Amino acid sequence: MNENFTKRIRNKDLLDKVMSADEAAKFINPGMTLGVSGFTIAGYPKKIGASLAKRADAGEKLDLTVYSGASLGDEFDGELTRKGVFKKRIPYQTNTDLRNAINAGKVGYFDMALSELPLWVKNGVLNPIDVAIVEAAAIDEEGNIIPTTSIGVSNTYVEYADKVIIELNTYVPEAIEGIHDVFSPKKVPNTEPIMITKPSDRIGTTYIKCDPSKIVAIIESDIPDNGRSVAAPDDEFRQMANNLIGFLKSEVDAGRLCNPLPPLQAGIGSVTNAVLDGLQASDFQHMTVYSEVLQNSIFELMDSGKIDFACATSLTLSADVRDKFFENFEKYKDKIMLRPQEISNSPEVIRRLGIIAINTVIEADIYGNTNSTYIDGHRLMNGVGGSGDYCQNAGLAIFITKSTAKNGNLSSIVPLVSHIDHTIHETHVIITEQGVADLRGLDPIDRANTIIDNCAHPDFRPALHAYLEEAQESCCNKHKPVNLKAAVEFNKTK
Amino acid sequence: MNENFTKRIRNKDLLDKVMSADEAAKFINPGMTLGVSGFTIAGYPKKIGASLAKRADAGEKLDLTVYSGASLGDEFDGELTRKGVFKKRIPYQTNTDLRNAINAGKVGYFDMALSELPLWVKNGVLNPIDVAIVEAAAIDEEGNIIPTTSIGVSNTYVEYADKVIIELNTYVPEAIEGIHDVFSPKKVPNTEPIMITKPSDRIGTTYIKCDPSKIVAIIESDIPDNGRSVAAPDDEFRQMANNLIGFLKSEVDAGRLCNPLPPLQAGIGSVTNAVLDGLQASDFQHMTVYSEVLQNSIFELMDSGKIDFACATSLTLSADVRDKFFENFEKYKDKIMLRPQEISNSPEVIRRLGIIAINTVIEADIYGNTNSTYIDGHRLMNGVGGSGDYCQNAGLAIFITKSTAKNGNLSSIVPLVSHIDHTIHETHVIITEQGVADLRGLDPIDRANTIIDNCAHPDFRPALHAYLEEAQESCCNKHKPVNLKAAVEFNKTK
Repeated sequence: MNENFTKRIRNKDLLDKVMSADEAAKFINPGMTLGVSGFTIAGYPKKIGASLAKRADAGEKLDLTVYSGASLGDEFDGELTRKGVFKKRIPYQTNTDLRNAINAGKVGYFDMALSELPLWVKNGVLNPIDVAIVEAAAIDEEGNIIPTTSIGVSNTYVEYADKVIIELNTYVPEAIEGIHDVFSPKKVPNTEPIMITKPSDRIGTTYIKCDPSKIVAIIESDIPDNGRSVAAPDDEFRQMANNLIGFLKSEVDAGRLCNPLPPLQAGIGSVTNAVLDGLQASDFQHMTVYSEVLQNSIFELMDSGKIDFACATSLTLSADVRDKFFENFEKYKDKIMLRPQEISNSPEVIRRLGIIAINTVIEADIYGNTNSTYIDGHRLMNGVGGSGDYCQNAGLAIFITKSTAKNGNLSSIVPLVSHIDHTIHETHVIITEQGVADLRGLDPIDRANTIIDNCAHPDFRPALHAYLEEAQESCCNKHKPVNLKAAVEFNKTK
Repeated sequence: MNENFTKRIRNKDLLDKVMSADEAAKFINPGMTLGVSGFTIAGYPKKIGASLAKRADAGEKLDLTVYSGASLGDEFDGELTRKGVFKKRIPYQTNTDLRNAINAGKVGYFDMALSELPLWVKNGVLNPIDVAIVEAAAIDEEGNIIPTTSIGVSNTYVEYADKVIIELNTYVPEAIEGIHDVFSPKKVPNTEPIMITKPSDRIGTTYIKCDPSKIVAIIESDIPDNGRSVAAPDDEFRQMANNLIGFLKSEVDAGRLCNPLPPLQAGIGSVTNAVLDGLQASDFQHMTVYSEVLQNSIFELMDSGKIDFACATSLTLSADVRDKFFENFEKYKDKIMLRPQEISNSPEVIRRLGIIAINTVIEADIYGNTNSTYIDGHRLMNGVGGSGDYCQNAGLAIFITKSTAKNGNLSSIVPLVSHIDHTIHETHVIITEQGVADLRGLDPIDRANTIIDNCAHPDFRPALHAYLEEAQESCCNKHKPVNLKAAVEFNKTK
């Protein structure tokens, strides 16, 4: 055992729990339910997946139910899908093999807002957690766990699990200790307010509390997060960013937004990363972030002095930005914080802080319903994730999409989305590369005309207006005209 | 002026503001925006509507934009609709004439979650409030307003309005003073936690703070709330109540709910009133209520000792129960509290307390999307109201509907609802007179089969199962099969 590994196990009684991943995997029996660390491919276990896969290869039917924070890396989600190990896997995924298996009905899945998952574990709505598997940067003298690049639901899994397996990852600097703020609200009826009034408020501990007698195995690991490459901004991304900046500026000018801005939240992915990146060119200063994931762009905005502080439940960086972050950790450590997703995605805090939530969608309809999960109403993409928490309670809920898909052949603005994740009640603003539709306070028909004229691609506007006019005739309603048959038959292609 | 009226104006400088409704109405100019007290036909102004109607009769085009708490009585919403006074009327209504005018495109309306309205007023998203019109039981020495049977958004309207008109209603006993708890959270970024951890926690004042120089008119009134009659429970209501009780009991037995239960919320209407009434027959004790409206059934459950405490933003009682309440006020005054709707409907408090939210819907689909507002997707009923706040953040979100409508000829369970107010992410449980579908943790296909088998009327189950099987074939998806065309063409009638 190398010294950098053993010295991180500060409770020396636990040194005899160090074992190989294959040995540790023996604590996992067929049919068990696991609570696993990891959120948007950050801070997830990298080694135990291969050991479980080996058992599946040898013919064992594992049928595991696995709960996580959000998406895990291919070493876990991909590997175990390909070996048929998952019975059920919630609450979010981005792995292609896993997604295909879910759509084929081979792996169970249901889509949920991420802040609810820890509540359901605490209240016994989901299965009891047999084993928690958590990636750690260190274990302290009391046996408490210092997490790595995410927290997710790990604090709750560790609290409620019978057994805990730790992957202690030496790739993550031990110096990461201190950026976490772990607060676990008690169960109803013994609740209390979450005392956060700004992103930098510290309310918890720097570690996940863990009874050391629960720790049955410690696995050595030095594998970095699988990272997440982000697409370089193209002209449309840049135009979306400009539209966002222009809108936020006009809201500040009109006195509807304070300056410095309320904390920003941005969903995972290339679009939001590129759009945030565009804030470099804005005049906004002293921005803060209260989000579920910190991507590359956040660090670039910190480097340029635009962002003062950012908290989330995960650090999801491309390999180069991550390594730069680890190398320059001292520079960032007082400017970031990681929280459990029960806190980062808390409706309570989101509403209180008046968060500006920026999330991408697959399609939006002319009344402002949006679809962020199911293509054609049935083919699952990633899941609703944190947008389920943020958009319903944000001070300003902004949805972003390119006006077209499939090289401009398909309209992302339609008469009726094929699946609804966010209703007209939640959608404040839609932004495409074409423009901005501020829907707050508008009647349905005004909403429709604003979305079509400001956000739809000009090629599709005539057909959308024609639909709206025909619907007024056919349903005899001048408030919110709908022709459901025509809506589902609407030709989205040029 | 009668003594019972003048003694309630404790700030004697304000006595010279007493005037007729016709005189007071002169402060209202065409094109103005009014912020009006009243929530679910409780605590709304009864006299000024007739004065404005007279001016409309005389040919004046008033074009008023009117914001309220929620629905107002016919003396206001009905009268002003029939005279064509409204340009826009938000955020909720139950008046038949107003509803018809909205659907005809004659009155502007957009549907929103009720907790957002005060935020939009504070942040300037909506029009500035020219005049606030508030029903009061008294005005204190400082000019502060003691509300009557509701608070709604009155505290925010009074704070942000240029002028305030008060209808001082002597029908409401002055003794009502003390049941209100008015707390107005500050604007972002100067926010603070709402320090409520149980329904009886008092955090504010017993009055709405009002700068007396804003008060331009005080109108004498002695007209009771228009009340709200509730339908007597029928066999189906009773069966729904039994199903609810059975479900809650099984949740307590399984340890998924605490006992005493978390606070209850129930939407307005005969169905929820009848279902709550059914709790009389349960073993539950020491129940509490954290809701937006207290209906008859709450008082009956207090009388029988089942409910210890109830808070809401409005008291909406039938005439007989209201008069009994006023007569026996001493008995109830320490057991109820009225709060602003920003607090009663606060996502922060709802999530924290783990509220059991019980709301009715028009229809539900086999995946658990529900429609509570638009019949056939376009004909507005009442509005999403508080269910937009409660269901998204509740500890347990229960939707109730009869399995059929139109004397059993129409199925309330369908392949795809024609409008979505609450998505699959929010719907925990559906209850009909047929049974209970607990959807938490279920995959889409399991959700569909559970809803069809437990909640749909037996007459419609074969067609719903046939739809589901056909959808699996036609869309080649075994996770969440959908056939949009077949869904909208589904024959809901026998």
